[in-house]
Amino acid sequence: SLRTAPFFRMAADLVVQLSTSLKTKPDVVDFGTVFTDHMLTVEWNANDGWQTPLIRPFGDLSLHPACSALHYAVELFEGLKVYRGDDKRLRLFRPLLNMERMSKSAERACLPAFDQSELLGCIKRLIEIDQDWVPHLGPACLYIRPTFIGTEPSLGVKKPNRALLYVIMCQAGSYFNTELSLWADPKYTRAWKGGTGDCKMGGNYGGTLFAQLEAGSYGCQQVLWLYGEDHQITEGGTMNIFLHWINEDGDEELATPPLDGTILPGVTRQSILDLARKWDEFKVLERYLTMGQLCSALKQQRLKEMFGSGTACRVCHIGSILVFFQNLQLPNQDKHSLSSRIATELTDIQVSR
Amino acid sequence: SLRTAPFFRMAADLVVQLSTSLKTKPDVVDFGTVFTDHMLTVEWNANDGWQTPLIRPFGDLSLHPACSALHYAVELFEGLKVYRGDDKRLRLFRPLLNMERMSKSAERACLPAFDQSELLGCIKRLIEIDQDWVPHLGPACLYIRPTFIGTEPSLGVKKPNRALLYVIMCQAGSYFNTELSLWADPKYTRAWKGGTGDCKMGGNYGGTLFAQLEAGSYGCQQVLWLYGEDHQITEGGTMNIFLHWINEDGDEELATPPLDGTILPGVTRQSILDLARKWDEFKVLERYLTMGQLCSALKQQRLKEMFGSGTACRVCHIGSILVFFQNLQLPNQDKHSLSSRIATELTDIQVSR
Repeated sequence: SLRTAPFFRMAADLVVQLSTSLKTKPDVVDFGTVFTDHMLTVEWNANDGWQTPLIRPFGDLSLHPACSALHYAVELFEGLKVYRGDDKRLRLFRPLLNMERMSKSAERACLPAFDQSELLGCIKRLIEIDQDWVPHLGPACLYIRPTFIGTEPSLGVKKPNRALLYVIMCQAGSYFNTELSLWADPKYTRAWKGGTGDCKMGGNYGGTLFAQLEAGSYGCQQVLWLYGEDHQITEGGTMNIFLHWINEDGDEELATPPLDGTILPGVTRQSILDLARKWDEFKVLERYLTMGQLCSALKQQRLKEMFGSGTACRVCHIGSILVFFQNLQLPNQDKHSLSSRIATELTDIQVSR
Repeated sequence: SLRTAPFFRMAADLVVQLSTSLKTKPDVVDFGTVFTDHMLTVEWNANDGWQTPLIRPFGDLSLHPACSALHYAVELFEGLKVYRGDDKRLRLFRPLLNMERMSKSAERACLPAFDQSELLGCIKRLIEIDQDWVPHLGPACLYIRPTFIGTEPSLGVKKPNRALLYVIMCQAGSYFNTELSLWADPKYTRAWKGGTGDCKMGGNYGGTLFAQLEAGSYGCQQVLWLYGEDHQITEGGTMNIFLHWINEDGDEELATPPLDGTILPGVTRQSILDLARKWDEFKVLERYLTMGQLCSALKQQRLKEMFGSGTACRVCHIGSILVFFQNLQLPNQDKHSLSSRIATELTDIQVSR
């Protein structure tokens, strides 16, 4: 009802408290380590609904130690990027897809509904204020991290009566700068039917660190997540996975696993499918892909390329997979690889060439 | 190494900052809503290891907005209780089991190792300082919530270089005060093989709220979590599950699902198994239990009682299960029920009768 969950109205209510001392902007840094001068915070409580959105100097949050996010991971996030075009104008890449996914995550996490376009309006105002942080060079950009946490100040697993939506922005730097090596072991599962793998909830990530460290101990950079008895290929690290191959019927195909509840509906994933379908040069399919099918294709030289996609990494060529004590060497990337073509095309769109 | 993760030493280092204004202690309140006057905090960082443990006035935490716990649920907790015995002395119930489980959760979450007995020492000091909060009456007690969160102040899914271990304490009140009604639907899964269901990590809980609300919409209090094609009975809400029945071979049996990675190793669960095995009056088994087996037993009047167990709820009789549009009425609880006998015996141990 409007009484318990009025959508916040940005245009009318947004309050801005500018920082009195701006930070110096460092040169290229690691992803996610240097934040801009301001942040957006909007509080919600069950009695009064959404409170006045506030843009204020970047700084620590003050949270009750029983806060639902800290105990029960009632939390979710989004990731999107803003680019400075060749025409000097700033552009967000498909932000409505992020707002839509954020709404779905909020519903799944039992956090309150919010008005997507009003939140996007607040984010645009934040970007405007910190616009000098958006890099001027090439495909460099600023990474935007909307975060939504339950802040109920009492214990017990229950729907929170308080919540905080906040947005921080950081230098994107380079996420992965070389081709990726993956490690796969069916003893770890990232997501499962009836779970939350298709939402960007915090709980999907913390449980993956242990496997990621094991991948590292084998000299690999990320985990390739398998699923089920037939070892379906699902995601790689925090990326969606694509195969560019000649399929079992001899047709050229770009394939990625379908959104069956265990796969994160990536914005870059969707954009790649949209692009490739527009090209109409080969089959583009959302279908199950097993490790057995990949191995057969590799053996029969039907695999052209395997790559991952995500907002942070964009498009990332996969060079090898260590699985069942075998190190599978995948076809190399070159300028004719599909991932190179997609990366170039995405950049052209993002900087509006 | 000792350099990167020296265990903190409580006896030598603990610093106490007493609150200058103590709260009034309210009468019976809801579980987890009223906290004591002090809390324990211990910081860790990868360079210097564990810092000085601090007991300080209960209050908000100041956290970086990129904090790993808030984005990626790099977090875990424990729950244990302190009782005031008939002899007026305070007793923790099997706290080493909680310390042991907390260590395992920390390993799985990629949070640093800690010295279990030193942490327990710090917790005992905290209890001593807030000892007036431990109720004087019967089975009432104070609930202790150790919490351990990653506080890395940068984005990117990675092992945190900073962490905070803290302990808060609250009035326990009554968690469930009547017999429970459960709702089961295989479309939701709590935990799965290769996941984190056997650890007390935050991500196991936030994802369950949605199903809990759906249970509520059917007039039920908690979810009965099923697993797999054969609808195995795994947990109920945040409780372990027990069947007291005449099994398929005609033998009286107390049964609970085995610790196969999808089941939380509850301290109350273990204590019930220990007690029942000591009695040696009927079979005590950790075995798979399916919804089909439960329905058969119910139809053939072989079910004596179904109950849940947990630190918060202790032992809780289950009155009904709504499943596949059928409302299964389970045998009533009376003073001869196993759950009543176990509850009485546990209380006797906890208050040292």
